[in-house]
Amino acid sequence: MGILIVGTITLDTVQTPTEKVEDVLGGSGTYAAVAASFFGNPVRLIGVVGADFPSTYTDFLQTRGIDLEGVTRVQDGKSFRWGGKYTDDLNVRDTLFTELNIVADFNPVLPDTYKDTSYLFLANDPPQLQLSIIEQVSNPKLVVSDTMDFWINEQREALEKTIERVDILILNDSEAKLLTGESNLLHAARAILRYGPKRVIIKKGEHGAISITETSFFSAPAYPLTEVTDPTGAGDSFAGGFMGYLASVDDISEGSIRKAMMYGTVVASFNIEDFSINRQKSVQFSEIEARYQKLQDAVQF
Amino acid sequence: MGILIVGTITLDTVQTPTEKVEDVLGGSGTYAAVAASFFGNPVRLIGVVGADFPSTYTDFLQTRGIDLEGVTRVQDGKSFRWGGKYTDDLNVRDTLFTELNIVADFNPVLPDTYKDTSYLFLANDPPQLQLSIIEQVSNPKLVVSDTMDFWINEQREALEKTIERVDILILNDSEAKLLTGESNLLHAARAILRYGPKRVIIKKGEHGAISITETSFFSAPAYPLTEVTDPTGAGDSFAGGFMGYLASVDDISEGSIRKAMMYGTVVASFNIEDFSINRQKSVQFSEIEARYQKLQDAVQF
Repeated sequence: MGILIVGTITLDTVQTPTEKVEDVLGGSGTYAAVAASFFGNPVRLIGVVGADFPSTYTDFLQTRGIDLEGVTRVQDGKSFRWGGKYTDDLNVRDTLFTELNIVADFNPVLPDTYKDTSYLFLANDPPQLQLSIIEQVSNPKLVVSDTMDFWINEQREALEKTIERVDILILNDSEAKLLTGESNLLHAARAILRYGPKRVIIKKGEHGAISITETSFFSAPAYPLTEVTDPTGAGDSFAGGFMGYLASVDDISEGSIRKAMMYGTVVASFNIEDFSINRQKSVQFSEIEARYQKLQDAVQF
Repeated sequence: MGILIVGTITLDTVQTPTEKVEDVLGGSGTYAAVAASFFGNPVRLIGVVGADFPSTYTDFLQTRGIDLEGVTRVQDGKSFRWGGKYTDDLNVRDTLFTELNIVADFNPVLPDTYKDTSYLFLANDPPQLQLSIIEQVSNPKLVVSDTMDFWINEQREALEKTIERVDILILNDSEAKLLTGESNLLHAARAILRYGPKRVIIKKGEHGAISITETSFFSAPAYPLTEVTDPTGAGDSFAGGFMGYLASVDDISEGSIRKAMMYGTVVASFNIEDFSINRQKSVQFSEIEARYQKLQDAVQF
């Protein structure tokens, strides 16, 4: 089944304690689409790039089978640029700059062929943009969205209207607390369910993730990694892998959701082993399966 | 099989955002022994109390079947007193006071009947005291110890000598990082294995725990609790439940260790629902089993 991913496609500058890279391929849409592309189903990407966006990057996305018909290239505009710096233990990130450029005025109109999409993932974007996409898609089987602290603080009303329309909200633990004012994650999750989503998935970084519905609780372990190079894009890779697996089995039961979270966890674990999507270029599906099995073993008791 | 627990037996003053209790029964030995007592095997406790220690507290411990022959009452001394205050989300604790009193000069000599102990748990105590107990016990099947930041900072050399002699070291994530200087918990765990233990169990509070050996990795979820009253004693309850289960099955295989960690998690989850060991007074084993099953379900994928 087809997956539609809406998110940013950016040029990132990332500094870690040991290395710095400039203008590498990044963005929530990029990470999610690359992650989803491992699972063999058509992946369509909606986003915008500027005249400065290297064609080698779009070429790469196409080699992954990612359909870029929905990616607009603004010939007189500059691409979204983001810069971030990680502190010593790679768990804390400071944003150095965010140049929205062409993204500020991006109001995507879906190509007709995109409207009939079963699996829709709205990566981090302005809530109104996310809502506009939801309204353009006809009868999707599953709508999942991410968000971030900026929209919670600055566009709360619009965000609440968007959340009301999604089936699953994915966000990280600090965002869940910020959105609800609850310090206990279970209380926060239940408060979010009252906004409308049927399920909340809370990402906890190196501590894994949890999934909560009115009647279920799932605790997903993190993959035990010793070599982390760059955590950028981990959350989007998780979500992309999650969507990719669900579309591949075309099933959104509790059992499939849990397996999808673990495939998302595995794909994200590869992503953070190198900058940008570099590690993903060489990952074989057999390696994904091997880590999935290792996680299966890691929780058996 | 018999369990020997060495730890503190204290009078605690605990302040949470909503309530304050004074001189309640506490201490690492107390929490661990009460937790271990759920599993039906003889539990022996080594510790010291002062003339001011209420007999209602020792009476309670005896109603749990805990053998207090190894608990010394110093008639001209004052009990260990500890005071702590929790901030709003109950995840951060400030120690308000620590009055060691009689504990400062405590050098326990094991009763002869205690020397033949299969399962030894050394709760948080000075490393030399822990080592002295190890040297007094003949041929134990399993020696487990806890420690804390204070000993890591102040008595590192003695601590290293003690760790070398234990089978399993249990400590929390910040202590593991402090002890090894590693920010990645897997690196930290492997560094600790090089000191001598066969296994390291790292407690991560609301994020569960992990167990690491040279050849295995286990990720234990936390129990999803919505009502936390007082986290004091959670780590010791975890360790006590862990030891209690292992002694009850008299098996220290990987499979039993994992189950023991989950029973420890469950017992600790009850403990933090009320101050002191109050919640434990009414917990039925069927309630422990129910939460254990819920955790089984929470990790299935």
